[in-house]
Amino acid sequence: MTVGETFTYIYHFSQDDVRTFAELTGDDNPLHLDPVYAANTLFKRPIMHGMLSASVFARVFGRNFGGTGGVHLSQMLEFVRPMYPDVEYEARFECRSIDTRRHTAEISCVVVDPATNKPTLRGLGVVYHKEMFT
Amino acid sequence: MTVGETFTYIYHFSQDDVRTFAELTGDDNPLHLDPVYAANTLFKRPIMHGMLSASVFARVFGRNFGGTGGVHLSQMLEFVRPMYPDVEYEARFECRSIDTRRHTAEISCVVVDPATNKPTLRGLGVVYHKEMFT
Repeated sequence: MTVGETFTYIYHFSQDDVRTFAELTGDDNPLHLDPVYAANTLFKRPIMHGMLSASVFARVFGRNFGGTGGVHLSQMLEFVRPMYPDVEYEARFECRSIDTRRHTAEISCVVVDPATNKPTLRGLGVVYHKEMFT
Repeated sequence: MTVGETFTYIYHFSQDDVRTFAELTGDDNPLHLDPVYAANTLFKRPIMHGMLSASVFARVFGRNFGGTGGVHLSQMLEFVRPMYPDVEYEARFECRSIDTRRHTAEISCVVVDPATNKPTLRGLGVVYHKEMFT
């Protein structure tokens, strides 16, 4: 990987995925699960857990952009707009810096709703990979 | 909730939970799933996905400490030590500040391995809740 390199990943989670995440984590906030409850909030319909939408970092760092065996050291997340199940989002990753001494890279990500071109999630992660970041 | 208020939550994830998270997110990094692969790394055995261990924020903000219907606005995470499936961890939350005008609170968390009393995960989250943070 080189500084400035980018990687785009299209993803979505279904309402079933949101239910699985709710069961796995125990976060059964009705805002994520109950259409009637959500209809009476400013979101109008169930929204994804922020931490589920942010799991795209794990996926992309672990498989696509960061190298198999990379280790996630830190992560900053800003949930700037609600994200909904069954909507396709575009996650735009960019390698911001590489520290060859520490074998780490800073990788930014902006998740965008392609329908509006507005960001929904912003993040900056640090990944360690002994062989990749040299 | 008041500034300085704390909440402690004991949690663990099983290796099955780690597999479910891998399937859900597509992060099938062998470091999380393959004992043979993990045995040859500095971790010696499979470690949890950082984003799975960090989902405790969603759980606790959504149900225990932040109020049903709270909205997660941002999250800083530092994965300071590896976390393993089937180990019980203690997550210590503390309300650091409340902004009554914006209806938000800053809530810190340190996850500790009770066997060593060493931190494994540090985080700071911002949660919005119109009724709770007034």
